Amino acid sequence: MKKSWPPFNFSAGPAMLPKEVMEKAQSEFLNWNGTGLSIMDLSHREDAFIGIVEKAEADLRQLLSIPNDYAVLFCAGGASFHFSQIPLNFLKNKAAYVDSGIWGNKAVKEAQKYGKVDACSVLKDVNGKWQIEDESNWIFESSDQYDYVHFTPNETIGGVEFLQNPEFGRGKWVADMSSNILSKPINITDYGMIYAGAQKNIGPAGLSIVIVKKEWLESGANPLTPSLLDYRVLAENQSMYNTPPTYSWYLAGLVFDWIINQGGISVMEDRASKRSNTLYQFIDNSDFYRNPIAFSCRSRMNIPFTLKDESVNDRFLKQAHEAGLVALKGHRSVGGMRASLYNAMPEAGVSALVEFMQWFEMKNG
Amino acid sequence: MKKSWPPFNFSAGPAMLPKEVMEKAQSEFLNWNGTGLSIMDLSHREDAFIGIVEKAEADLRQLLSIPNDYAVLFCAGGASFHFSQIPLNFLKNKAAYVDSGIWGNKAVKEAQKYGKVDACSVLKDVNGKWQIEDESNWIFESSDQYDYVHFTPNETIGGVEFLQNPEFGRGKWVADMSSNILSKPINITDYGMIYAGAQKNIGPAGLSIVIVKKEWLESGANPLTPSLLDYRVLAENQSMYNTPPTYSWYLAGLVFDWIINQGGISVMEDRASKRSNTLYQFIDNSDFYRNPIAFSCRSRMNIPFTLKDESVNDRFLKQAHEAGLVALKGHRSVGGMRASLYNAMPEAGVSALVEFMQWFEMKNG
Repeated sequence: MKKSWPPFNFSAGPAMLPKEVMEKAQSEFLNWNGTGLSIMDLSHREDAFIGIVEKAEADLRQLLSIPNDYAVLFCAGGASFHFSQIPLNFLKNKAAYVDSGIWGNKAVKEAQKYGKVDACSVLKDVNGKWQIEDESNWIFESSDQYDYVHFTPNETIGGVEFLQNPEFGRGKWVADMSSNILSKPINITDYGMIYAGAQKNIGPAGLSIVIVKKEWLESGANPLTPSLLDYRVLAENQSMYNTPPTYSWYLAGLVFDWIINQGGISVMEDRASKRSNTLYQFIDNSDFYRNPIAFSCRSRMNIPFTLKDESVNDRFLKQAHEAGLVALKGHRSVGGMRASLYNAMPEAGVSALVEFMQWFEMKNG
Repeated sequence: MKKSWPPFNFSAGPAMLPKEVMEKAQSEFLNWNGTGLSIMDLSHREDAFIGIVEKAEADLRQLLSIPNDYAVLFCAGGASFHFSQIPLNFLKNKAAYVDSGIWGNKAVKEAQKYGKVDACSVLKDVNGKWQIEDESNWIFESSDQYDYVHFTPNETIGGVEFLQNPEFGRGKWVADMSSNILSKPINITDYGMIYAGAQKNIGPAGLSIVIVKKEWLESGANPLTPSLLDYRVLAENQSMYNTPPTYSWYLAGLVFDWIINQGGISVMEDRASKRSNTLYQFIDNSDFYRNPIAFSCRSRMNIPFTLKDESVNDRFLKQAHEAGLVALKGHRSVGGMRASLYNAMPEAGVSALVEFMQWFEMKNG
């Protein structure tokens, strides 16, 4: 009989939040800080809530060393809103889009509605493994020609991560960091803007975070931009031009606080390497499982894998679920399996997954 | 010494949710339905979550008798997004906007970006009381001339409610019901679209609900509409074109279920009348407190009031807070006090408020 575990959730997002965060949130769900009130009920204009958001921003600034000439915004909705907002706010002449997968491509499609976009698909199949092509082969004009250069540091569906950033466009990068923000140190000044949906490394779905160079807000958005999609409007109103998603914002603050207490971003980076290496090594040493990504750009966050015999996929997923290893199904557009290993995933989750995969291989190999 | 109560929260939004809903949400926060998983962690593509949203939609359809030729959408963000979305989706020729207060006026301002708008300000000061002018005096063309007629059934800040709907534009109404949805029966077919931010009568902030005539989606949105603001795109993707605010959606479902268990919309309507009548009667019988709205359009949801001597406002708010009656401060744009009495407010909350107000008058009158 196979082993089972208390559930470990490998969902790509909404994804598991740190156990300590969830326990704290539950304990104060009906009674925050002895007030007898829930944070969920509290007006966003109450001093208590203002205190929460000020601490959340300060903690995020500390974690990512965000300089003062960058604004931090907390927005309703996920990263996909920004696919429209970015061109509406910043596309004046022409923009470059580095397309490394499904999400990068969605950003391209949306931007094309609003102006001139040069897009380059950089993911190549090299001997059966997906690889980000060397940037010397990317087809773009000189980066001076572009208002910004958009790229996707980690492709959640494909499992492709820029382990080393490109040089092209440094300083005017706009990066969709939805699935790898807070998992390694970044040099903010290389970016004009960073954005991330919350539901992977930050908090619950329905919130996104923007870090944007204040200077970029000066020239103003396209006049047809909905007010709530105008970054300057959001910045001028401290992300409260309208009622913000208060509970998600509070939870994001708990997550930032948790990361600080765990030791900060470098600890998150070490753990991410360790978790992903454990799983990649196991997969690489197996003839039964396969990861389709080249070593140079394997995601530390989202690890897709296939079985030698695809007809046993469903059995794998069913038995994994019975063993307490849930949400391992690959994205519907690519199939197979995917294990998402964000900051909140404990090492024990990866060990359990490897142990199960060994057992399953033994039974089915 | 004055009395005190376990806190009652009179916030206009985010506002209190029903106690039973909050207790259930807390009890299953870490372990939903025996799965060992939190709803917050669950992918929006999981069967368990799909089950939740299907029940939520079915319950809402039952509560408001929504016919099948209307789509129900659950959207990220609040009602203000729709101020842009409505003209982007439906303004082809010209639209009429009935402006009965601050929110109606915001809708006008945003719509004017996108096309021709006839707006009529209908709130008049009649002998020191605000009153919605009789519609025979509204200055509009024939309603045939308009793509839609926008109005705000309840103005949260002003405390002005259409206790009787106008006739003008019936059948092509677009209504911002953020602060009075689910508080009385409505005839859906009078409307092309109804929308509401969740954070008053539905659930936590960061979610809004749209009920829209499917036929209205056929002609398509302005080509510059961000995909996530295109109602047709949202409808075609069952409100999951991108990751939705899952936890808020789940809580909205719990609230719908709670309303059904309480006896449905007519029970909510009775309670709303009873709560607001209690407070209005007390105010009207006092020389110390004053409500600035005419009888014909007093909101059952948001009751603003002032003190005879404005210099004691701060003392009122401070002592009310100490007594457990919180968030009674009026909106910063109008000052004074405001008690919001949504579906979740128990009668005991209103009794407590009246008792406190009596005590305060005695001490300061």
